[in-house]
Amino acid sequence: MSLYSELFYSKAINELFSDQNLVAQMLQFEAVLAVSQAKEGIIPPSMAEIIGHCCEPELIDFEKLRTAIKLSGNAAIPLVKQLTEIIKNKDTEAAKYVHFGATSQDVVDTAIVLQIKDFMDWLEEKIILLEHQLIAITKKHRNTVMIGRTLLQQAKPITFGLKTALYLESITRSKERILEVKKRVLVIQLAGAVGSQNQNISTAVKRQFAQILDLNYAHSWHTNRDNFAEFAAFLGVLVGNLGKIAKDISLLMQTEVGEVFEGASEGKGGSSTMPHKRNPVTSTAILANASRVPNLVATMLTTMPQEHERSVGLWHAEWEVLTEIMLLTAGTVERSIELIESLELDKTKMLQNLELTKGLIYAENVSLELAKKIGKSDAHELVEKACKLAISADKHLKEVLQDLKVDLPNIDELFNPENSIGLSLEIIDEILDKIS
Amino acid sequence: MSLYSELFYSKAINELFSDQNLVAQMLQFEAVLAVSQAKEGIIPPSMAEIIGHCCEPELIDFEKLRTAIKLSGNAAIPLVKQLTEIIKNKDTEAAKYVHFGATSQDVVDTAIVLQIKDFMDWLEEKIILLEHQLIAITKKHRNTVMIGRTLLQQAKPITFGLKTALYLESITRSKERILEVKKRVLVIQLAGAVGSQNQNISTAVKRQFAQILDLNYAHSWHTNRDNFAEFAAFLGVLVGNLGKIAKDISLLMQTEVGEVFEGASEGKGGSSTMPHKRNPVTSTAILANASRVPNLVATMLTTMPQEHERSVGLWHAEWEVLTEIMLLTAGTVERSIELIESLELDKTKMLQNLELTKGLIYAENVSLELAKKIGKSDAHELVEKACKLAISADKHLKEVLQDLKVDLPNIDELFNPENSIGLSLEIIDEILDKIS
Amino acid sequence: MSLYSELFYSKAINELFSDQNLVAQMLQFEAVLAVSQAKEGIIPPSMAEIIGHCCEPELIDFEKLRTAIKLSGNAAIPLVKQLTEIIKNKDTEAAKYVHFGATSQDVVDTAIVLQIKDFMDWLEEKIILLEHQLIAITKKHRNTVMIGRTLLQQAKPITFGLKTALYLESITRSKERILEVKKRVLVIQLAGAVGSQNQNISTAVKRQFAQILDLNYAHSWHTNRDNFAEFAAFLGVLVGNLGKIAKDISLLMQTEVGEVFEGASEGKGGSSTMPHKRNPVTSTAILANASRVPNLVATMLTTMPQEHERSVGLWHAEWEVLTEIMLLTAGTVERSIELIESLELDKTKMLQNLELTKGLIYAENVSLELAKKIGKSDAHELVEKACKLAISADKHLKEVLQDLKVDLPNIDELFNPENSIGLSLEIIDEILDKIS
Amino acid sequence: MSLYSELFYSKAINELFSDQNLVAQMLQFEAVLAVSQAKEGIIPPSMAEIIGHCCEPELIDFEKLRTAIKLSGNAAIPLVKQLTEIIKNKDTEAAKYVHFGATSQDVVDTAIVLQIKDFMDWLEEKIILLEHQLIAITKKHRNTVMIGRTLLQQAKPITFGLKTALYLESITRSKERILEVKKRVLVIQLAGAVGSQNQNISTAVKRQFAQILDLNYAHSWHTNRDNFAEFAAFLGVLVGNLGKIAKDISLLMQTEVGEVFEGASEGKGGSSTMPHKRNPVTSTAILANASRVPNLVATMLTTMPQEHERSVGLWHAEWEVLTEIMLLTAGTVERSIELIESLELDKTKMLQNLELTKGLIYAENVSLELAKKIGKSDAHELVEKACKLAISADKHLKEVLQDLKVDLPNIDELFNPENSIGLSLEIIDEILDKIS
Repeated sequence: MSLYSELFYSKAINELFSDQNLVAQMLQFEAVLAVSQAKEGIIPPSMAEIIGHCCEPELIDFEKLRTAIKLSGNAAIPLVKQLTEIIKNKDTEAAKYVHFGATSQDVVDTAIVLQIKDFMDWLEEKIILLEHQLIAITKKHRNTVMIGRTLLQQAKPITFGLKTALYLESITRSKERILEVKKRVLVIQLAGAVGSQNQNISTAVKRQFAQILDLNYAHSWHTNRDNFAEFAAFLGVLVGNLGKIAKDISLLMQTEVGEVFEGASEGKGGSSTMPHKRNPVTSTAILANASRVPNLVATMLTTMPQEHERSVGLWHAEWEVLTEIMLLTAGTVERSIELIESLELDKTKMLQNLELTKGLIYAENVSLELAKKIGKSDAHELVEKACKLAISADKHLKEVLQDLKVDLPNIDELFNPENSIGLSLEIIDEILDKIS
Repeated sequence: MSLYSELFYSKAINELFSDQNLVAQMLQFEAVLAVSQAKEGIIPPSMAEIIGHCCEPELIDFEKLRTAIKLSGNAAIPLVKQLTEIIKNKDTEAAKYVHFGATSQDVVDTAIVLQIKDFMDWLEEKIILLEHQLIAITKKHRNTVMIGRTLLQQAKPITFGLKTALYLESITRSKERILEVKKRVLVIQLAGAVGSQNQNISTAVKRQFAQILDLNYAHSWHTNRDNFAEFAAFLGVLVGNLGKIAKDISLLMQTEVGEVFEGASEGKGGSSTMPHKRNPVTSTAILANASRVPNLVATMLTTMPQEHERSVGLWHAEWEVLTEIMLLTAGTVERSIELIESLELDKTKMLQNLELTKGLIYAENVSLELAKKIGKSDAHELVEKACKLAISADKHLKEVLQDLKVDLPNIDELFNPENSIGLSLEIIDEILDKIS
Repeated sequence: MSLYSELFYSKAINELFSDQNLVAQMLQFEAVLAVSQAKEGIIPPSMAEIIGHCCEPELIDFEKLRTAIKLSGNAAIPLVKQLTEIIKNKDTEAAKYVHFGATSQDVVDTAIVLQIKDFMDWLEEKIILLEHQLIAITKKHRNTVMIGRTLLQQAKPITFGLKTALYLESITRSKERILEVKKRVLVIQLAGAVGSQNQNISTAVKRQFAQILDLNYAHSWHTNRDNFAEFAAFLGVLVGNLGKIAKDISLLMQTEVGEVFEGASEGKGGSSTMPHKRNPVTSTAILANASRVPNLVATMLTTMPQEHERSVGLWHAEWEVLTEIMLLTAGTVERSIELIESLELDKTKMLQNLELTKGLIYAENVSLELAKKIGKSDAHELVEKACKLAISADKHLKEVLQDLKVDLPNIDELFNPENSIGLSLEIIDEILDKIS
Repeated sequence: MSLYSELFYSKAINELFSDQNLVAQMLQFEAVLAVSQAKEGIIPPSMAEIIGHCCEPELIDFEKLRTAIKLSGNAAIPLVKQLTEIIKNKDTEAAKYVHFGATSQDVVDTAIVLQIKDFMDWLEEKIILLEHQLIAITKKHRNTVMIGRTLLQQAKPITFGLKTALYLESITRSKERILEVKKRVLVIQLAGAVGSQNQNISTAVKRQFAQILDLNYAHSWHTNRDNFAEFAAFLGVLVGNLGKIAKDISLLMQTEVGEVFEGASEGKGGSSTMPHKRNPVTSTAILANASRVPNLVATMLTTMPQEHERSVGLWHAEWEVLTEIMLLTAGTVERSIELIESLELDKTKMLQNLELTKGLIYAENVSLELAKKIGKSDAHELVEKACKLAISADKHLKEVLQDLKVDLPNIDELFNPENSIGLSLEIIDEILDKIS
């Protein structure tokens, strides 16, 4: 386990992708294959039972396995060899039915799919949690006025709830994608040496096999890898959306902005020599991951044009890369949940920041109001002049307008941020209505 | 237009993404916005009509536009400026209602979505065509026996129809994805400066706007870019699948393999000094594109964590990259259609190649058959010995077995490739039944 | 030319990579090849002369060329064909000596190298200019005190000159790399069909050829592409360094920070409805490019494992990608020069921002000073207490310390930013001494 | 350690990047910093000694470290904390001088540089070994004639030695790059919180520090990351060149080509059910790595625009990615050495393959020879006709020419591959002369 196994990753999920677990899934493949073949009368049920009993990761010599993998080029060949030896010691006859009719890629691909299945169960739960968090924070900050920013410049007021409502929509879209992706990625691989199956892995056996593993039936996808690539991209998109949240928080946490903060906790993000610092540690981890995942997805796409019935290298490149994408996604999701859970707002600072431009952010309001009386052109000209005066004299625009005796009875209303948030509240309500 | 505009791209689709067309889509945004606002009583219908009449790309000075884009940082600001001038010359009043309440990103994003819409219409049609081609070729070559290859080594026989049936399934999965992706990507962007909308772009106006443009309604996705990223990845996956087909063809066309060929045509792929050469020109173009698209998709993912309510650079990176992905995808799809349309098979060569290993590819058949008589272990041992003899003596395995007087009455059947294609035919039929 | 040809690109350099220019370089290949062969007595000098006269891009039918490229798979075959026809019309005999002994890849690769050569001349000049700018701005702002920031948090004071001195060092390192890269990338490609040369492209001919084109001599690198990949990466590294500058400026330009600005110019970065906005347009373009180039470099690396003596697709993928990298680099460099040229500083704001933490950024100073009197531990404890008081009471740390009657006679010195810039000035002087 | 730790990686090098070793390098930083400060009279030598004694990875609680890293956001903060506690238990005073004046990034960056240094020592040795291997194989197969192939089509004969000589040149170029890259990447990072250094890390201290660690002196490169990016790209380029070799071998090993083989060894690449298979296992691992490294390099480039004086996430993304690049490079280099060491050639098959086109690969030879007698045009026409006849009648071109009574006294010479290898031998000799 790397030094960074808890920073960029999720402790809970790391375990799922351990060598132990991968081998366990591969052994599950062999056990379930034997059971399926027994059910269809291809091998004797007693043989399947013996095979099943031997499919235990504890029986495997991992050191030997790693060395053998270098020679065989994949994990299935030496694992099946070890398994066969183990079974042979129990029952010579049963050993003949191990891995019956299957090919290495069947084992490896199905084992990865089984890991994806467990991962997706976890992910779905976490995404629903994220959704709930975002619903709650949106409701809470529906009316929390702050400045909206474009190109890192103050633009016009919004509410913090609008920001989070739009995050929420992006996460909900990912939740929607889960179903679509699962349907295509949670499939068996059981197709034999060249994808043509054989008597031992007949359609009936495959149907049994798929049912027991709770995966969808599929023909060979040994070298048609769109499902894995699509799945990787799905995770990349999710990580990108979470990176956007972390980007915002890290910017809002800037000393000069100081509007939103990652919650502090003992030993987190502080500095003894710089007592004012409050580092966005969680956002940092998320942003790091959001820089890494996209290029791993690129590898999954680059390796798609695989040769003939099994690739020479491109398939092999997928193994660690797809796993790494899942591990980093898990870390990103877990960090994001922690991030949103702990968010603290400084509403006073938000209001102070709204005043930083000395009223210039309300120039358009004034212009639109004046237009009703003196026409658009004159209004625009007048406001432009006032803005220039305000900037050169470093005065508040409201003050300048009052100095200029501009006829605006409701001038305070025009400079009230709550009146300048557009349809923020309506949008938030629409989003909450739709989702919750 | 680049020298390679017909090699890597599709002439038909290049046009869709011309400067002219992009500006036309942006002007359409302005025209439809005005109409929508007129329908909702926000601006006078006559004003909308005047605006609509002026939204003509021919009226735009493109040279001036390009220079102004450098200063403004996007295409919408200077385009709206030019448009406003044009309208002002017709009607000063109408000029006030141009781009009313909208923001630059609304224009640019919606214009791109409108291009995507046209692109997807084209793509859907082409994918259906590809499907039909693949159905036809699969039916035609259902029984065309050839060797299946793993890690570039001959493995066991399949039929060419099995290969293409599995291509077909991958394309059908992409067809399935189209609907899912379209639902999320074909949406309006109309949210105002900071995504909070305003009185001029009310929910009612937006609904009108969406309906006229035949796009889905959406809240601001100014900085939540999953839909574009997902769309890019969808294209990347499709290109990957097509790259796989081209990879196979280029390998099958090798002088030493010679089983499948890109159709020759006047001036295509030949060499005057090397008369034997038949270059896989079309596959080459597809493979080139399949090397480029994945990393462009990575850029779409990398740029997702966009700042606040509008990004400083990450949004801007998308413009040309997403367009390039669509252009390269179009080229890839068009080339693939040409490729499959023109495929020629050399069935004789396929049969010759099946004999290259002098019967060794049938060793397992023999072993299984013998096992019925003398048991698995003895059968395996005997066949192993025969194989070694065959290799060392450079003899055909069948001959060696006969020399060894092995009792196999049906030996010819065991060495007939048609008896070794596993369930190729059943799989093909299952696939064809499901799809057609 | 794309709408964005002046935003992301350099008008000056775009021209260098036009179809016209690429064809001109390819024709130069043919002309110089003929001259070299004439010098070595392989073809008659008069023939070389005729060939040379015909190597004029104006004579080429580009429309026809594009269509033919689709069939032949590269630009050289149909170009040589057109050229041969043109020469044949002048002199049938001369036509026989066109492209004598060369192969398509020789033409295409050498033409690209010639473009790289011109590009590098331009780039070298621009990098020297950048260096000069950075030297000047570093000297000017050697003593301009501002806050240094880590993880987007205020940390400790530095000077703006230190920032730019470190930018300067990174650019100087790229200048250093130019020589190393040029030596390997500015080489001829002239190796014949399979890289084995032939009588017509003898070593002597190649030496002539290299000398006339002012390129280094080289054996075939048809499928050993490290030089192009290295060159692409060199540009990627440069763009990354420039992206870092733009990132800083865009952050320093934030409304809430307001310390450094891109110079305003007529029509640049402003907004009529938001008079306070000053968009970092130039930084935006640089940041966009810095998001795109890395993944194009990845394509150059991904395509390196090219097949045998000429690749099927991977070589072809390089053509537009390498060009795009150069085009985007040129735009990035040009924008960076504009950016640095126009930078404006608000020193008052820098000083104000130094006070934002109310003295907390000086806590370590105080602690170190106190330690001299009361020991490290006590000093640390006392300062920690004072900081907490300052934060909770929202008071200035100096005031709190004075309230606590802490014995610090030179307290004002401790809170003077100029005394807290570490060795900023020494570092700057070291850097300037070394470079200028 | 992953299941694939010996397949894609190098067992020897994996160890270098273990958690233990990384922590050891970080502790070395602290020990050497203290020594350097003692030498410059900044801290008492006895304190430095005590610190040095405590800098032992065995004393560190790794479990605690991992958990703390999640809170602090990097490995240095909690490691220094643990180290300080350890020292405090020995000597309270000494504990005050730990990490004196340094910042977390100084520790982490320098520790990585120290790992790079060890890695580069190993790599340099291996590259020299690779060079020797390639020199030997080139000498051995200087005259081994085989067909050269372009776009996977047979083109013209070369020798296998020419192929390997060109590989050799690419490796030699990488050897040349080592010196250039080392000069810039093997530098200290010791610059303090915001890169401005301070009294405790004066220039003199830094010079001591650099000398002891045998690294180059450098100013802060906390957020100017070109050296790491350049180093990553250097490795990417090397891996690409090695990928090219593996690509060729995997293609030459095809059943239908059968010219070159990875050496077989017990348990390597075989298949019990498919006795004819000889899988290119080593090439497969290299090709897998060559698909992964490029996109990791892209991440190193993408993360270059780091914010201000320390980045929020982009620096953090580098840690595991740069390490992964080194690990995969080591595996690729080690596999390549094994690959080249074990290569076996089938010269008979090479000669047979040269005859596959039935003489058509010699058409140009014939044409050139005939031209001397009957002129180019007539020669070309005649040979074209003969080729067509040969193809349609499936006859050897030589036979057809003889049937046509073409006057070619030396016809056998024209169809001798040894006479058609261009300047292969001269090129090889030039390369060997230059390198050895």
